[in-house]
Amino acid sequence: VKAPLNNKPKIGIDLMGSENAPNLLLKEVFNLAEKTDDVDFVIIGTEEIESFFSELKEKTHRKSPINAVFVKNLISMEENPLVAIRRKKDSSVCVGMKLLKQKEIDAFVSAGNTGAIIASAKMFLNMLPSISRPGLLAVLPTKKNPIAILDVGANISHKAENLMQFAFMGAGFQKTRGIKKPKIGLLNIGSEEKKGTLEIRKAYQDLQKMALLKDNFIFSGNIEGKEVFEGLVDVLVTDGFTGNVFLKTAEGTANFILDYITTNLTEKNINIKSVLTDLENRLHHSEYPGAILCGVEGLVIKCHSYSSPNDFANGVKGAIALVKNNFMELLQSYLS
Amino acid sequence: VKAPLNNKPKIGIDLMGSENAPNLLLKEVFNLAEKTDDVDFVIIGTEEIESFFSELKEKTHRKSPINAVFVKNLISMEENPLVAIRRKKDSSVCVGMKLLKQKEIDAFVSAGNTGAIIASAKMFLNMLPSISRPGLLAVLPTKKNPIAILDVGANISHKAENLMQFAFMGAGFQKTRGIKKPKIGLLNIGSEEKKGTLEIRKAYQDLQKMALLKDNFIFSGNIEGKEVFEGLVDVLVTDGFTGNVFLKTAEGTANFILDYITTNLTEKNINIKSVLTDLENRLHHSEYPGAILCGVEGLVIKCHSYSSPNDFANGVKGAIALVKNNFMELLQSYLS
Repeated sequence: VKAPLNNKPKIGIDLMGSENAPNLLLKEVFNLAEKTDDVDFVIIGTEEIESFFSELKEKTHRKSPINAVFVKNLISMEENPLVAIRRKKDSSVCVGMKLLKQKEIDAFVSAGNTGAIIASAKMFLNMLPSISRPGLLAVLPTKKNPIAILDVGANISHKAENLMQFAFMGAGFQKTRGIKKPKIGLLNIGSEEKKGTLEIRKAYQDLQKMALLKDNFIFSGNIEGKEVFEGLVDVLVTDGFTGNVFLKTAEGTANFILDYITTNLTEKNINIKSVLTDLENRLHHSEYPGAILCGVEGLVIKCHSYSSPNDFANGVKGAIALVKNNFMELLQSYLS
Repeated sequence: VKAPLNNKPKIGIDLMGSENAPNLLLKEVFNLAEKTDDVDFVIIGTEEIESFFSELKEKTHRKSPINAVFVKNLISMEENPLVAIRRKKDSSVCVGMKLLKQKEIDAFVSAGNTGAIIASAKMFLNMLPSISRPGLLAVLPTKKNPIAILDVGANISHKAENLMQFAFMGAGFQKTRGIKKPKIGLLNIGSEEKKGTLEIRKAYQDLQKMALLKDNFIFSGNIEGKEVFEGLVDVLVTDGFTGNVFLKTAEGTANFILDYITTNLTEKNINIKSVLTDLENRLHHSEYPGAILCGVEGLVIKCHSYSSPNDFANGVKGAIALVKNNFMELLQSYLS
């Protein structure tokens, strides 16, 4: 555990490639720096933000320093990730990954092209011990404790081997949050051992064996989509395709219901308004908005490209908290 | 189109194998028969319900007749479907399928073991023209029109060929509901053509070509879980594993949110109560609670095994409406 890192986290922030104008995100970083006194911010953006950056630097009073790395290029949402990262080594995403690799920053936050973030992480960073594919980890509220779900879309492989690795990373994540023996569930279409695809059934067997061998997590078996929010497990393991569908379906259903209620309520008293606002906050601005890319040697936070500047700032705050809690060091020691 | 069928639908109802006691479901059928005057009900159950059946027959006044078929056996939720249907040809599920095959009934409703229902449907009924695997079709509310989703769990194959067949059956279903040119979407993890698994990408290409050729549906491309409830498409096509996760996740999220609101509301005025009740009705007691098994020559309705007796009655009502609307005949003519 490297003490100096924890004293003053260096957070690299990619301002490019999301649905928000880079200047909007830049302003959020300045807002954060006015309120936070123990962080080194490093923003990464193209030269188009240079003048606004100088302007904000003059106008604002910051408790934490903000340094800028200006780059020549950006990768947009529409670009083919693999082609883009090969051609645009000078893009904000690739430069951010290089800074992370060189330990110039302790975490890298981006709301850009997901595929490009994952591909460049794989290109520039080493994998963690015993991990062959990274997974995106998202945190969702439940009736009890928040649950870690992975993979929510880093890849579409659904091999038992990868599901096992996701399970270990999810358990490691929950350990860093103080849960001594995380409960792991496998997202499936029924609770019976024989449900689901061949690979899921294999993962079931392997997780059952491994839980007995390792004794540092509990395998709770199959979990159906309708039980997830009961909070019976700490980690929900699934392949990236299903996990992505799961996450977006939960989001879509929540929006549908909240919309329905707000539209149909004729009398809106203060009580119902505050309950709905609290709920929206719990659902949308969770501790780690977006997702953590687990499995690479370096802390990468992917924020939703469509999230608001405020959500983006929450993503940056999440990154700061993870660095302060020695997340990467603890995860590595859990995996090795 | 066979006119006599539509005059007086004969609805076969399996009372066994769900989480509800058979007598509770039987009582619901009698309630329905007291209110409905143009149906022939045929209940199927083991001899254990015989005395309660006689008792109800004496006590109640019915507008529609209820006949009973008493069977020797039932298949429970826990049984292996394939083993069970081979060994228990005299079970309520198998007997119901045989009655459907012999056209003794026009529809068969069951809340029993899903696997056994599907396996016995495949064993006793012919497949519809050009369909190789049946799919379970569920109907969900959206901000606009209800959407048909299939497959929600009849099988875990995810071949492009099967996805295409689900698309045609979903379009056929919506045609029978008066939508002339149904819009079909493919459940995926992004809107871009190249997203998802190999088979989904293939289905994308095939649906695009077929929409141009056939001109009786519109292919709207990929749809993400968060957009489904916007109601932009009439049919959502997906494999049985993902579809099942989708459906149960939507259900789990809805329960989580409604629970949260009811628990946290301190002042409960009449307005919010009625909005929440309306919403719950829309979500849980949709027109067709449970799902339609599409692809076999015969109308099979699978109700949730955990649904309330009232939901089960809604499933029976759904079956009556489908028979009256010539659903099977229209679907067959759409597919051929």
